[in-house]
Amino acid sequence: MIETTTQIRVRYAETDQMNVVYHGNYAQYFEVARAECIREFGFTYKQIEEFGVVMPIVELNIKFIRPAHYDDLLTIKTTLKTLPENHIMEFYHEVYNEEGKLLTMGKVVLYLIKANTKEKTTLPKEMLEKIKYKFIV
Amino acid sequence: MIETTTQIRVRYAETDQMNVVYHGNYAQYFEVARAECIREFGFTYKQIEEFGVVMPIVELNIKFIRPAHYDDLLTIKTTLKTLPENHIMEFYHEVYNEEGKLLTMGKVVLYLIKANTKEKTTLPKEMLEKIKYKFIV
Amino acid sequence: MIETTTQIRVRYAETDQMNVVYHGNYAQYFEVARAECIREFGFTYKQIEEFGVVMPIVELNIKFIRPAHYDDLLTIKTTLKTLPENHIMEFYHEVYNEEGKLLTMGKVVLYLIKANTKEKTTLPKEMLEKIKYKFIV
Amino acid sequence: MIETTTQIRVRYAETDQMNVVYHGNYAQYFEVARAECIREFGFTYKQIEEFGVVMPIVELNIKFIRPAHYDDLLTIKTTLKTLPENHIMEFYHEVYNEEGKLLTMGKVVLYLIKANTKEKTTLPKEMLEKIKYKFIV
Repeated sequence: MIETTTQIRVRYAETDQMNVVYHGNYAQYFEVARAECIREFGFTYKQIEEFGVVMPIVELNIKFIRPAHYDDLLTIKTTLKTLPENHIMEFYHEVYNEEGKLLTMGKVVLYLIKANTKEKTTLPKEMLEKIKYKFIV
Repeated sequence: MIETTTQIRVRYAETDQMNVVYHGNYAQYFEVARAECIREFGFTYKQIEEFGVVMPIVELNIKFIRPAHYDDLLTIKTTLKTLPENHIMEFYHEVYNEEGKLLTMGKVVLYLIKANTKEKTTLPKEMLEKIKYKFIV
Repeated sequence: MIETTTQIRVRYAETDQMNVVYHGNYAQYFEVARAECIREFGFTYKQIEEFGVVMPIVELNIKFIRPAHYDDLLTIKTTLKTLPENHIMEFYHEVYNEEGKLLTMGKVVLYLIKANTKEKTTLPKEMLEKIKYKFIV
Repeated sequence: MIETTTQIRVRYAETDQMNVVYHGNYAQYFEVARAECIREFGFTYKQIEEFGVVMPIVELNIKFIRPAHYDDLLTIKTTLKTLPENHIMEFYHEVYNEEGKLLTMGKVVLYLIKANTKEKTTLPKEMLEKIKYKFIV
């Protein structure tokens, strides 16, 4: 299991007239948290695409427990529970506010797809090795 | 069971560099479809808020089957399976493209909350009657 | 001079905690209005890209006079003052609410660029002819 | 003259199918840069709103020179040229990429308005003093 942590400051644009972060914007927060999680492995999602692999989202599940507000500095915990050895990657996210209260929980399932042929694929071997290393350490 | 249908044209802003609609934007598509579903009952979500009731989303679940592309004219089917007699409303959404292919399926759970006290509440009686009428017809 | 008209219903996601449409979202409204203006010429922006031409925005100027609110049905007037005979296209937009009050005025300048070489170009001749025809009629 | 600097990492959601940051998203980048500029004065935009003052945008002007791409770490320079002694505040923004190339230039004009009466107002005196202090230092 790998767990990483990212911080995001809520933008005014992300609030709605209910004075809270619009629920759909958590997809972006999870995306940022996922990108930072991958960066901690020692490579970037951008580099995955440069290898000719794209990772479309196939499932998004979110539970909203408490609202986030403008200018809140959110902490997002991202967990990879299993090593992505086939074409599937699953990320779990938890969003906390500055008082440590749990606001939101999410699960995002992605496929690994060859950009040109749209076939299912796996992570480039070198990247998989870097993730494995993190799992051991 | 009530089923309504709405059409949405994909905006350029809603695409990402994978040449498809960014997954997080479906939350907005569902929101539009939900608002149009409520409008068909004979009132609007705006009027619900004018009654002092807000409807925060507590759960969002989406399965992505096929991508939507720029300028696609999407059809969104919205289903209300049960009469919202307590503080919970559940909407089911299906997004189709112009060839009738199913792209995305979603479920959105909302709470009915008094805007001032944050207490759980129900829909104003008059509105509930309008929904009941639609269920019967 | 060509003038076209488009309607857009304000989404909840587009509001912010000031209870108005977030100013940055007008760029999307103008984009929709521009796409509908081009559709009235007899082709689509999507088809322009299929010709290998992209139209990046090089200038965006907006004046905000009155706010738009959730669920407002906005009317956007789009004006093309001159025939786009070189690599530049300029669109003028005015946003009105349901009472006919002017909310926002915008000007958007786009370049016509070859997608592969990034060289400046013009609209495909056939499309330019269709715009010319609209100017005459 | 006061100049501050903020960094923003481009999100996937902010790109479009032209493989660049969608032009409308710069309004959000400027908003973040403005909020960080105000934070450096020793208070926050959130606190301005807590004083009963809101700052709607009345003018937005952007020139797009070069595109920003996914995962770019952008640097945004924000300049306040004059002390905001009446109901108007003007911010100038420049966006640079990691190679120091200028991508975008923007000017944002905001009004200071009393949230309840919608009357024009000025910054609370205490906040204005903090800005003055920065101008002198």
